[in-house]
Amino acid sequence: MKKFAVLLSGAGVFDGSELHEAVLTLLSLTQAGVSYQCFAPNIEQMHVVNHLTGEVAVGEHRNVLVESARIARGDIKATDELDIQAFDGLVIPGGFGAAKNLCNFAVVGSECEVAPSVKAFISEFVEANKPVGFICISPVMIPKLYGEKAKGTIGHDSDTAHAFNLMGGEHVEANVEQIVVDEARKLVSTPAYMLAENIAQAHIGIDKLVKKVIELA
Amino acid sequence: MKKFAVLLSGAGVFDGSELHEAVLTLLSLTQAGVSYQCFAPNIEQMHVVNHLTGEVAVGEHRNVLVESARIARGDIKATDELDIQAFDGLVIPGGFGAAKNLCNFAVVGSECEVAPSVKAFISEFVEANKPVGFICISPVMIPKLYGEKAKGTIGHDSDTAHAFNLMGGEHVEANVEQIVVDEARKLVSTPAYMLAENIAQAHIGIDKLVKKVIELA
Repeated sequence: MKKFAVLLSGAGVFDGSELHEAVLTLLSLTQAGVSYQCFAPNIEQMHVVNHLTGEVAVGEHRNVLVESARIARGDIKATDELDIQAFDGLVIPGGFGAAKNLCNFAVVGSECEVAPSVKAFISEFVEANKPVGFICISPVMIPKLYGEKAKGTIGHDSDTAHAFNLMGGEHVEANVEQIVVDEARKLVSTPAYMLAENIAQAHIGIDKLVKKVIELA
Repeated sequence: MKKFAVLLSGAGVFDGSELHEAVLTLLSLTQAGVSYQCFAPNIEQMHVVNHLTGEVAVGEHRNVLVESARIARGDIKATDELDIQAFDGLVIPGGFGAAKNLCNFAVVGSECEVAPSVKAFISEFVEANKPVGFICISPVMIPKLYGEKAKGTIGHDSDTAHAFNLMGGEHVEANVEQIVVDEARKLVSTPAYMLAENIAQAHIGIDKLVKKVIELA
């Protein structure tokens, strides 16, 4: 039985992992007969957003690993607990947490850096040539992880696509039901809620992405 | 286009809505061509559980409506904002939040009471004879809402089934892939994570439940 890692970034679209994308990733992996282990960095969230008002909850603090555990029903590990031998690949759901906690793209755009513990974690998959799937906004980390001309998509938002290319990547436009594959690097991405108008649309792209990373494993 | 309400109880299995069940409910509704509006009571959670350790986070406070908004991507209403005319039915995902925030079954068992704002909300569907689907542990509210001999399932946990009957309901055993239907009351339930060993199993029962409540609408 193949086993995949799933990298989470909190629990909620505005300050963590987008919950629909995260849960749909776990569904598609399980339906494909693949087991999974959730991971998250043991770091503070950039901030906490009240998802009812959309405002930052000033003075509130939450930990990315602790909140991500909500998605994993408690069964989660810190990124520094990775044993790369045990895994065939990795999937990274989106949500602002990917751009606020895993890296700081939401704050500094193309000048962004991937958080050290996250970079170390994903790099183990890259170096072992194991497939990685990036969903929604998480592909903004691709150029920082894979270097020049690595292919990825964030849909067709021109500003984000421009930033992707500025960082050295090669952005490929895609619709919500499509995936973009960099075969040589075993790298797959899909826009999901960068474009999805509903959860069923997001599901189609995520399911394709999951099937493709499993095929590449 | 039919429209359903989805009643949430926070965001995380140990103190709120079970996230897989909640997201899978939204997926099945949308795939069936039904739109939805999420609701939650504007009340404090019973407590906050650190989902990494399983321990209560002493001194921490969270609001059920605010946390449920994470599942709804911000698009949520308080239970007292319900316009029953606009809805064809209701689905209530499980998670301990259903037994800690929507009612107090987790604390007092068969002596439980449904929270006043929650009782008023669900009762509007009951009185209008609109179908309601109860998932996982949320069926423990059925006897309190529907009266004598209302049928429901929480799987085959004998203590919970006994409490269900003590409250006046008629418990029917079911497996994870099954639903129990009380046709006269337009009432459907399924065990989901009361029994599910993985998300794909939970998905099967939830998808059946959603299709059945839509059929009854």
